[in-house]
Amino acid sequence: MNFPTRLVEEAVTEIARLPGIGKKTAMRLTLHLLKADEARTVDLASALVNLRTKTRYCIYCNHISEDEVCSICSGLRRDKTTICVVEDSRDILAIEETAQYQGLYHVLGGIIAPMAGIGPEELNIDRLIERASSEEVKEIILAISPTMEGDTTAFYLSKKLGPCSVKLSSIARGIPLGGELEYADSLTLGRSIVTRTEYH
Amino acid sequence: MNFPTRLVEEAVTEIARLPGIGKKTAMRLTLHLLKADEARTVDLASALVNLRTKTRYCIYCNHISEDEVCSICSGLRRDKTTICVVEDSRDILAIEETAQYQGLYHVLGGIIAPMAGIGPEELNIDRLIERASSEEVKEIILAISPTMEGDTTAFYLSKKLGPCSVKLSSIARGIPLGGELEYADSLTLGRSIVTRTEYH
Repeated sequence: MNFPTRLVEEAVTEIARLPGIGKKTAMRLTLHLLKADEARTVDLASALVNLRTKTRYCIYCNHISEDEVCSICSGLRRDKTTICVVEDSRDILAIEETAQYQGLYHVLGGIIAPMAGIGPEELNIDRLIERASSEEVKEIILAISPTMEGDTTAFYLSKKLGPCSVKLSSIARGIPLGGELEYADSLTLGRSIVTRTEYH
Repeated sequence: MNFPTRLVEEAVTEIARLPGIGKKTAMRLTLHLLKADEARTVDLASALVNLRTKTRYCIYCNHISEDEVCSICSGLRRDKTTICVVEDSRDILAIEETAQYQGLYHVLGGIIAPMAGIGPEELNIDRLIERASSEEVKEIILAISPTMEGDTTAFYLSKKLGPCSVKLSSIARGIPLGGELEYADSLTLGRSIVTRTEYH
């Protein structure tokens, strides 16, 4: 790619390092910033630096937080007997959006992915076992994506949490609401028959 | 959308102001930056600020430049008798990539778009007429997208440049190479017949 100047090249290179953004999009964004107000770029840059340098993580659940303890862990109305285990903070936001869950969370910070060099020791698992061992906690829900790595992680966690006297559950897998049976993949369909739920 | 903290909200809001990036993508990028090295974010932010505060524009053609005169206008091998008029600097990069053009450029900085409140006086047109009036220049090529706004701009420029004693041309419009006739829209196809070129 031709770059008109070194500054443009540096900006495009840095933007294109972001996931899902290629060189062409990076160039489009760069030229947009050049056209827009200078304040726009300065605000963007300072928001990014502030975000990265000042963000903290909750000492209990590892969720992104403003204070030592996040707003969910310190919430008075949350059910402290249930912990929902997720891969990252984005999953918490998605679950909170549903307004169907009142318990606490635990962010692993990734999933076991040997191909990417991520083993169990890279994840926030020891702290989970510590929490699961406390008397207050009654149930641990594994809300991990049903992919190969996700299933591996869930299997590893179920072994590790075995000795703790907590109920262990997983979010339901099956046909998505609104999904049509004939277009469902056969693995999902088969599993949805095996793990069918009773009307009640 | 739920935001875990104010810093995350500010970063997401600023990123989502970029064209083509929605709140969901902005959240994904924000969480990526939080996970990646702090140096990555600091480098990105400083590249953006440097870009915006230190970039200059060529005093002749208005292209992005490191110096007072851009590398194209100061190029010894460029044909200084021809000026190719484009909407913005990105078009120069695209044309340079083809390696089919050796002349100079002129960046309008936009096109006439009454709906967006952009009239001829917002564009870098006076300087173009000045350049076209110089003795050295023999041909002006309009390389403006064949959209409604682009055609309006080209028509306006052709009227304005009429009194100058230069040859005025436009890039060819027609069926793209590799395009199939049956899928071409009828306007393009019709025009490609009317403006057919002789074999030579």
